[in-house]
Amino acid sequence: MKTKSRNRGVGQWKDAQAAAGNGLLDRRAFLRGGAALAAAITGYSIAKSASAEPLADDPWSKVAGALSPPYEKRSRYEEKVVRTLSNPNGEPRTQHARTPHHLLNGTFTPNGFHFTIIHGGTPDIDPEKHRLVIHGLVKQPLVFTLDTLARYPMVSRMTFVECGGNSAPFFAKEPIQASVQALHGLVSCAEWTGVKLSTLLEETGIDPKAKWFVAEGADAPALSRSVPVKKALDDAMIALYQNGERIMPGNGYPMRLLLPGYEGNMNVKFVRRIKLIDQPSMSYYETRNYTQLLPNGTSWQFNFLQEVKSFITHPSPGLALKGPGLYEISGVAYSGNGRIAKVMVSADGGQSWAQAALQEPVLSKAFTRFRLPWKWNGGSATLQSRAWDESGDVQPTRAQLVAARGESKGTPPVTAFPGQHYNGITTWAVDAKGEVKNVYA
Amino acid sequence: MKTKSRNRGVGQWKDAQAAAGNGLLDRRAFLRGGAALAAAITGYSIAKSASAEPLADDPWSKVAGALSPPYEKRSRYEEKVVRTLSNPNGEPRTQHARTPHHLLNGTFTPNGFHFTIIHGGTPDIDPEKHRLVIHGLVKQPLVFTLDTLARYPMVSRMTFVECGGNSAPFFAKEPIQASVQALHGLVSCAEWTGVKLSTLLEETGIDPKAKWFVAEGADAPALSRSVPVKKALDDAMIALYQNGERIMPGNGYPMRLLLPGYEGNMNVKFVRRIKLIDQPSMSYYETRNYTQLLPNGTSWQFNFLQEVKSFITHPSPGLALKGPGLYEISGVAYSGNGRIAKVMVSADGGQSWAQAALQEPVLSKAFTRFRLPWKWNGGSATLQSRAWDESGDVQPTRAQLVAARGESKGTPPVTAFPGQHYNGITTWAVDAKGEVKNVYA
Repeated sequence: MKTKSRNRGVGQWKDAQAAAGNGLLDRRAFLRGGAALAAAITGYSIAKSASAEPLADDPWSKVAGALSPPYEKRSRYEEKVVRTLSNPNGEPRTQHARTPHHLLNGTFTPNGFHFTIIHGGTPDIDPEKHRLVIHGLVKQPLVFTLDTLARYPMVSRMTFVECGGNSAPFFAKEPIQASVQALHGLVSCAEWTGVKLSTLLEETGIDPKAKWFVAEGADAPALSRSVPVKKALDDAMIALYQNGERIMPGNGYPMRLLLPGYEGNMNVKFVRRIKLIDQPSMSYYETRNYTQLLPNGTSWQFNFLQEVKSFITHPSPGLALKGPGLYEISGVAYSGNGRIAKVMVSADGGQSWAQAALQEPVLSKAFTRFRLPWKWNGGSATLQSRAWDESGDVQPTRAQLVAARGESKGTPPVTAFPGQHYNGITTWAVDAKGEVKNVYA
Repeated sequence: MKTKSRNRGVGQWKDAQAAAGNGLLDRRAFLRGGAALAAAITGYSIAKSASAEPLADDPWSKVAGALSPPYEKRSRYEEKVVRTLSNPNGEPRTQHARTPHHLLNGTFTPNGFHFTIIHGGTPDIDPEKHRLVIHGLVKQPLVFTLDTLARYPMVSRMTFVECGGNSAPFFAKEPIQASVQALHGLVSCAEWTGVKLSTLLEETGIDPKAKWFVAEGADAPALSRSVPVKKALDDAMIALYQNGERIMPGNGYPMRLLLPGYEGNMNVKFVRRIKLIDQPSMSYYETRNYTQLLPNGTSWQFNFLQEVKSFITHPSPGLALKGPGLYEISGVAYSGNGRIAKVMVSADGGQSWAQAALQEPVLSKAFTRFRLPWKWNGGSATLQSRAWDESGDVQPTRAQLVAARGESKGTPPVTAFPGQHYNGITTWAVDAKGEVKNVYA
């Protein structure tokens, strides 16, 4: 009886630990601990037994260490972790700097690695001299300094910013071999602190004829975009701090417009002027750039929302697996609609799915790190993630997405692909050597 | 009737906006918007009217900007924002680097500014060669590399780390004039990502005789501290990432023990060895350093918890107010017991109190930013904050705290004060010039 009961117990955990095909384990196994965890780990052990001899002292333990600097810098061993640049010589065209998602972990992007796209180089702005003017269809036009803005009630919120053109290489007819940084590196997430635009508009008052506002940056091209006033009164912010410190130059120092969930370029950096207007200004960046061309020859012009999306960062191309056994599959999910409701992961190209653990707190319009333990058996595997948001939206398959939006004909460099708002499923194929490739499935 | 009704409306908001004496406004005024916000702002307007002429173009708007770097750097105008160093020439003694809380905003500390205390300099550790051994009263001693650890299920959590000696200058008989950085700069908050220690102990197994473990760092002094096994099985973590990127050298690169809510030095940096034992090891750092001396001549030795605390960062000494009108009072609150339940703010030295807004999400054992709008009338004001945590603990007054723990006799430099675990109320006095001083009230 006792033996039988014990066997039943083990069997129960064995069932619980296998959550889907090709080695996907139950996301809860490692939270439960005890028997569940032991069962999940059994036979997957990846750490080596310690030898009987004491641990040798490494050379760095035998000498006095370095001075603490006023501004802490990362280890010299980490200096290879960088953003990749599309225009490293600063030729007179747009510069992209992409986030190395495969080399980061956690729920947001540190400031050194936040993606940036700059059309005319990063301006060197004196914060004491910079001004923000709110004018147009308001009752009282006002001018704000950085010091003045700091006196208003502030808010902090974690939110992603994503270029409308992020992931455009997936519009290619054939899968492009590149890292997750090259493919999905134009999205990042940070905590932004500043003053809600609605607070400032309470100060200026709003003429009822105002339906839009146009925000203009102090960069050389004076990038400007039109935004519905409704967004200004919802969650728009004049952000002054990025992850606790002043905004980085490439992200709009000393202040930027933040429009949580809207495509990156609308979050106007170096913002200096907000004019309330009765219809969109039809600026260069909303008429020529950043429109969504469709297969039928028409286009979507005011297509602001970054829809529900996810991708696996670990493993991913360039991060080869080192022998069979236990791994964590993890990645980021986010939606301009609000919170992520669920992320499902497949290791067999979508034949079976297991629900990933979502790192708490799950915040609206922010990265949500998902994680799932996986036992790689050393054979081929086809990894996918698929996210749902609280509005009920689900990430489409690539086939669904390109059926609606079209595929690219040519094959430009991975860093210069046309196409906007790709949020389809990404598929990584793992081969028997543990190498990871971008495939369509 | 109509006029009367309108007056009643305004009166209602006027009452709502005054939340406590000496100008403290209702924390909800700016969330409600509309009439409430207008009423709160009326007469407090701090922005200037914009002139009829167009905004002049600044010089940086007229030239092509700078190249985007691989690792984004802050603006040259921000380079004055630094940690202050207690031992800038690296003499053979402890080095402290303190967080400039008054120059940051948001809910956590960016990596450049996280406080550090290093007893033997920061070791230059090769992450490929570093090992973590778990041994002692375990079933199977194991050795983990950084690569191996990365394959286990990970967790991310925002948590503060605070030196037991933070805020020690408040033990002085007379208030010491110094910035919030000098007074409270030995606490910071970050998102740490890594593997729960309990996951690794499931791999090694635990001998039932194990009641404590001792963690040892790979720094030259091999700092080691004893920790109850109960904490290992609760929320202890081997942290590999700090705010999304690899841990900073001064914070334990390439891995550190994280014990949310326990005093800083127990969160052993550069952790290389964890030995399960049946009683505390009585190491140097738990017998000589980091004990709490009491007025009766005895001391508390194993006094781990950083109790509920708050302090105002804006305004604070060195951040003078610039003329009467609206300001935001803001600061950080945290508790080693769990979530912050409430923060009350006074502008009249504790005679009346208004409840501050807490920035969501309020996370366990993490910084919670509190904020309250305040109309400074240009006279003297005495600002205090007081926090409660979800366990019901409340921050003591300074008088209560020193009655129990004693006061310091001498007046050493502000950066070298004895005394541990000060969590009493901090008081800032604002004078008619807008200058802010540290006072006891």
